[in-house]
Amino acid sequence: MRHAVLGTGNAGRTIAARLVSLGHEVVVGTRDPQDTLARTEPDRMGNPPFAEWRTAHPQVGLAAFAEAAAFGEAVVNATAGTTSLVALEAAGAENLAGKVLVDISDPIDISQGPVLNPGNTDSLGEQIQRAFPDLKVVKALNTMNCKVMVDPSRVPGPHNVFICGDDADAKKSVTELLHSFGWPQDSVIDLGDIISARYTEMLAPIWLRILQKLGHTDFNFHIQVAGNEA
Amino acid sequence: MRHAVLGTGNAGRTIAARLVSLGHEVVVGTRDPQDTLARTEPDRMGNPPFAEWRTAHPQVGLAAFAEAAAFGEAVVNATAGTTSLVALEAAGAENLAGKVLVDISDPIDISQGPVLNPGNTDSLGEQIQRAFPDLKVVKALNTMNCKVMVDPSRVPGPHNVFICGDDADAKKSVTELLHSFGWPQDSVIDLGDIISARYTEMLAPIWLRILQKLGHTDFNFHIQVAGNEA
Repeated sequence: MRHAVLGTGNAGRTIAARLVSLGHEVVVGTRDPQDTLARTEPDRMGNPPFAEWRTAHPQVGLAAFAEAAAFGEAVVNATAGTTSLVALEAAGAENLAGKVLVDISDPIDISQGPVLNPGNTDSLGEQIQRAFPDLKVVKALNTMNCKVMVDPSRVPGPHNVFICGDDADAKKSVTELLHSFGWPQDSVIDLGDIISARYTEMLAPIWLRILQKLGHTDFNFHIQVAGNEA
Repeated sequence: MRHAVLGTGNAGRTIAARLVSLGHEVVVGTRDPQDTLARTEPDRMGNPPFAEWRTAHPQVGLAAFAEAAAFGEAVVNATAGTTSLVALEAAGAENLAGKVLVDISDPIDISQGPVLNPGNTDSLGEQIQRAFPDLKVVKALNTMNCKVMVDPSRVPGPHNVFICGDDADAKKSVTELLHSFGWPQDSVIDLGDIISARYTEMLAPIWLRILQKLGHTDFNFHIQVAGNEA
């Protein structure tokens, strides 16, 4: 399948590499491919320059947001949550219409505390769905580190991934993608419509606090339920 | 030990009964004890009238907020989160000064969605600490149903309780209380200062959504960590 992965940061790279390893065709979308490839310094998160990363992943394409979105039969939003709406505008509603978009981003401003923007009465997932009504937005994978997203076995024992969205078929296809990443059947919790995206985005601040405490990212949320002992 | 439990709802009753079963002296605080005892209808959550509940729990005292707070060597805030600051004002700073207060409430307005008020840039825990600087506020037990708070074995397997607060000794005494309720040593996660109360309050909306989905309250959050397999 042809996937567009929007965003050249660590999450986008990790998802793109995993999709390629599963036999998919992948084009990563960025604002300005020439600019992305010209960078020689690590990004502000300390990741190596994209061009350097890509020498190890030659099968991953790179294109402007619109071209990447047009290429993808499905789309992953792995841009920084605070800039996702701008990136998706650049991708273009006409290139997104009718497609499934997995939104793995959290709209969190780390410089502020961390602070979620738009907060607890809205969410990035809902904002994207409202801005692009012909897109089938599925919020998923935004509650764990990207290495765990694509390889849940990094965290032993049962733990969960939440999915939220208005389109049942889109959630089904995303669930299949999650299974292909290694998420077992009973690890996927469907929280309901896209409104519930705000409930999963609200997990980001405590996730960050636990990261600070543990000093590593190999952890995840698990909903322990009586009667579901594992 | 003498405990004040502020709030006559299901959470207050459950905590009060558990404390009595552990040999503590307990007075439940309410706005107007005569009014509380005069009620003959179930409350808006469907709980039986307090007077009826109390016939089965004759050792639990009932007093106005100020009298209960004066009685307690330690205090539990089990009032509705949206009215906790008013209840604590009625309890009186002079009756709270120097004491440990376990804040188990979430400032959530269910009629609105649910919506957290004050949202994600503040929390009820922090508001209480600011309003009563001589009180040692420990946010804890606000991320699960009250039956699970006092008997974590209702949910089999490992799961967690978070504590947040500025006073290390207060967190130590609350941790001991949690152990007496049945929370194992490694189930207690100290998230740090009282600011982290906002991170645990933000779990309330997803907790409510999962409740809707499961149809029962015997579940809880577990942070699954690589290297901590259980």
